[in-house]
Amino acid sequence: MKVVLIGSTGHYYSFHRALDSGADIQYVGFANGFDGEDNSHYIRVFASKYGTKVYDNYMEMIKAEKPDIALVCSHYYRNAGISMDLLKAGVSVYSEKPVATTIEDLDLLEKTYEQSDAHFSAMLEMRYTPAFKAAHDAVKKGLIGDVIMVTAQKSYKLNQRPEFYKKRETFGGTIPWVGIHAIDWIRWISGKEIVSASALQSNKYNNNHGELETIALCQFGLEDGSIAAVNIDYMRPAAAKTHGDDRVRVVGSKGIIEVRDGKAWLLDDDKEMELELEEEQNPFIAYMEQVKGNGRCRVQAEDAFRSTRAALMARQAADEGRIISF
Amino acid sequence: MKVVLIGSTGHYYSFHRALDSGADIQYVGFANGFDGEDNSHYIRVFASKYGTKVYDNYMEMIKAEKPDIALVCSHYYRNAGISMDLLKAGVSVYSEKPVATTIEDLDLLEKTYEQSDAHFSAMLEMRYTPAFKAAHDAVKKGLIGDVIMVTAQKSYKLNQRPEFYKKRETFGGTIPWVGIHAIDWIRWISGKEIVSASALQSNKYNNNHGELETIALCQFGLEDGSIAAVNIDYMRPAAAKTHGDDRVRVVGSKGIIEVRDGKAWLLDDDKEMELELEEEQNPFIAYMEQVKGNGRCRVQAEDAFRSTRAALMARQAADEGRIISF
Repeated sequence: MKVVLIGSTGHYYSFHRALDSGADIQYVGFANGFDGEDNSHYIRVFASKYGTKVYDNYMEMIKAEKPDIALVCSHYYRNAGISMDLLKAGVSVYSEKPVATTIEDLDLLEKTYEQSDAHFSAMLEMRYTPAFKAAHDAVKKGLIGDVIMVTAQKSYKLNQRPEFYKKRETFGGTIPWVGIHAIDWIRWISGKEIVSASALQSNKYNNNHGELETIALCQFGLEDGSIAAVNIDYMRPAAAKTHGDDRVRVVGSKGIIEVRDGKAWLLDDDKEMELELEEEQNPFIAYMEQVKGNGRCRVQAEDAFRSTRAALMARQAADEGRIISF
Repeated sequence: MKVVLIGSTGHYYSFHRALDSGADIQYVGFANGFDGEDNSHYIRVFASKYGTKVYDNYMEMIKAEKPDIALVCSHYYRNAGISMDLLKAGVSVYSEKPVATTIEDLDLLEKTYEQSDAHFSAMLEMRYTPAFKAAHDAVKKGLIGDVIMVTAQKSYKLNQRPEFYKKRETFGGTIPWVGIHAIDWIRWISGKEIVSASALQSNKYNNNHGELETIALCQFGLEDGSIAAVNIDYMRPAAAKTHGDDRVRVVGSKGIIEVRDGKAWLLDDDKEMELELEEEQNPFIAYMEQVKGNGRCRVQAEDAFRSTRAALMARQAADEGRIISF
């Protein structure tokens, strides 16, 4: 398959790992997501390593290279517009999450996708993390019965972030950027849709990162009266062993499953046990196989749209200090 | 000091431990909280063990015994009324939490306390659990800077509960009964007051316990824009080693403190370390010393009132599906 990359912000890592593993991929082009986007580091280090042709303009690249798949990794507020251009050109999209940073863009993107024959997926790649996959599979097997409450955590180190993180307009907010993974776990693991959101957020102690929120809490009603919550922070201290401290706790009618420190546990009326983890699959390869016609990857277009919508609604709930039903 | 106990539901354990430890206490009487309250098990097993005189009516007992302190442990919806009778009679009260199950009762109780010279405290005894105390003390020492987000968990086994747990009117609800401890940690550890609440709850899978909620989520705004959340459940499986799975995570400007499995950890920019725990103190003895004039116990009357108010407001927020500011 012919693949191109647009922009170099975010999670093109699984694509690089796929290339490095010798997967059958022609990496035919790299382009800026917009005029003046600074991708000089990527071009110097990676485009040269992979011998990829570099374009200034992504639509020129699309016309010249006719790729099967484009990865969309520009500044977050640009990604929805780029994805729409690609879908209209019949190119399948693998987009950074959130797939849009405004509800208006998300609505347009969904419509564009429906009118296109191309595939669409998003880098909600934590569905491929073995411990979270084990939790999902255990629930699906019925090991804890009916899921009624999910609580999840995302905690990251802030470090120094690029300039565009400092403005809501260009960054999109910490709930859509960081929290969306936890929101996606709720939907994916419970198998239930989110129907309402209430949220709180603050940019306290953000180390001169402008509007960037360092802390956020989201509370979600699910379609059948089940409930879920997410706590998000950019306050993970430097001494922590890992960049992220990702957790989920799933309460079911017959037991509880937890993921923490990359491991998964099951607790029910008979036992407490660690769940076996399967080998990690490459999310980009799974998507590429879907585009080829082989199976379905774990993040369908509808998942990308719905998890993004829930994140944007939670952000709005926090901005406006009200409960939003959708 | 002369001490009496009214009712035998809830947490008179620290009082019994104080008696068993040989503390200087005259346990002069036990009485029903209301006509027809069934305390036969307590009277048979404990009143006889301690040689305590048993009364049908607590006001008769108060007149006859003139106690310094009364523990109030009747059915939860009765406790506020009993406490008011005691305060009016000049008897210091050690009440089960929540100290009232309605806002109306809480308002009356606060007024009655203000007009009384007697002391008042509540069985928010988790302030005496060493790991939570260590978290509190570490924050107070400034080890994580300014607290900006607190998340806490209460998870209990349901087992079979008495009949009065099955009705909201007599039980009060799972947020005020179970969640209040976590709500109290937020106030106590952060040193910040709660000013708004949003909450979700459900009585799914409550094993024929009528209206009793098995799951709940609360989200709180704090006075300075900091934020907090609580997840509560009665779904802890039978195979779990302990009755409760109590946790707190405190995010500060300079580090994170966590309590889990009875231990406390500190993570900051320099290190990750377990906090040293001090020996557990007896909460009842601490209160009794305050009544004698020696120091202040950890749960002041204002704490009891404010944590109860936050719990009742969160319950109302869940009942009415709205954000409540107070």
